[in-house]
Amino acid sequence: MEVRTILVEPKSEENIGAVARVLKNFGFSELYLLRAPGIGKKALSVASHARDVLSGCIMVDSIEDALADSALVVGTTSKPGISARRHLRMPYFSPRELKEMVDGKRGILSLLFGREDIGLLNDELRHCDIVVCIPTNPDYPVMNLSHAVAVLLYELSEVHTAPEGPALAPIEDKERLLAHLRRFLDEIGYKEHKKEKSMLMLRRILGRAELTTGEVQTLRGILRKAEWKLETKNSFS
Amino acid sequence: MEVRTILVEPKSEENIGAVARVLKNFGFSELYLLRAPGIGKKALSVASHARDVLSGCIMVDSIEDALADSALVVGTTSKPGISARRHLRMPYFSPRELKEMVDGKRGILSLLFGREDIGLLNDELRHCDIVVCIPTNPDYPVMNLSHAVAVLLYELSEVHTAPEGPALAPIEDKERLLAHLRRFLDEIGYKEHKKEKSMLMLRRILGRAELTTGEVQTLRGILRKAEWKLETKNSFS
Repeated sequence: MEVRTILVEPKSEENIGAVARVLKNFGFSELYLLRAPGIGKKALSVASHARDVLSGCIMVDSIEDALADSALVVGTTSKPGISARRHLRMPYFSPRELKEMVDGKRGILSLLFGREDIGLLNDELRHCDIVVCIPTNPDYPVMNLSHAVAVLLYELSEVHTAPEGPALAPIEDKERLLAHLRRFLDEIGYKEHKKEKSMLMLRRILGRAELTTGEVQTLRGILRKAEWKLETKNSFS
Repeated sequence: MEVRTILVEPKSEENIGAVARVLKNFGFSELYLLRAPGIGKKALSVASHARDVLSGCIMVDSIEDALADSALVVGTTSKPGISARRHLRMPYFSPRELKEMVDGKRGILSLLFGREDIGLLNDELRHCDIVVCIPTNPDYPVMNLSHAVAVLLYELSEVHTAPEGPALAPIEDKERLLAHLRRFLDEIGYKEHKKEKSMLMLRRILGRAELTTGEVQTLRGILRKAEWKLETKNSFS
């Protein structure tokens, strides 16, 4: 897959430069910065021979812009979820499991890395299909930003892209499917207080399932069919 | 195995601090600094919550002191050897292969990391049983020091130590075996111009073989037996 590294509100210029260097070390170049500070001399100095990656980075202001065209959105966290019933950070995967999961797939894999101090916000984690956690020491699990990027890209540098296999559905298709599912929950009178939790669960399940465009279409076809049936039924009741 | 991280002549205090943090992130604590600058505020700041690792580090002046009691000495390089006939950097292993190799073994695994600019010197590489190279982009293979440490320790954090299995021979035993082999080459009139290359090859072979103390003793027993035979023969000739 094509790997896009997205830093969300990084504070330190040095970290941005160090991440650029790591990208180039592992043969990647697509760097997105979401609400980042300007790139100055410090970042350039730390990037060393990866100034081209730094100068080619894309500055965005919204997470939607950062994730545009993504086939798979992966959030990183140093705090994995504890309960399988809380879907925000669960289930979570190791970098190696992520590698095995995406090996041979096609499409843009967006890797989201959070702020140095507080990581990704819950609202940002909600955008993710998959949550990845580097196995670390519980006594000090929080890695430096650029080191976490290094470990993830080290694993992903071994990923092979299938030249022929089916492409994964882009984020826009999946978001339409999720919006469709949300409408459907309303249509069937699903309990309001359960809805958000169930929507997040559906997002995680569909994220893990790595849907192709054709599969998204089929699922939406099923939903439309069910809606049609409901309408027909309602009109007779 | 017990992992000892050794930085050889690191120049940057920030890198030393970053390495201390990486050690703690992956549950390690043994840090040796060979001819390093003093540890000041910068290193402490970058180490963040791993100040204990930094304050517990051991400063040494010779590579022999750094490697004392090691069962396996692993050198890291961004320049793998090209020819299998040049044994200094060959054969080389990936971090994953190293992990698989040492999994379930016992003893001290010393990981040598070179200077930020020129890495390990040939003389230092000669001390190594094994050479490891992180697979990187040929366009920019040289990683920042602390990022290379992060990738290696990420892999090694999954290594399990066998509670019962035989312990690997410590470096002192292996050095005695190698010195014995060198004497033996002299005794059999091995060609002087071939000797250094062959000694390095023997070191690499015995390094990969991960000898136990018992095996070292047996090999030295064979050498002694051969020497005795040679002497006996010579005394009659």
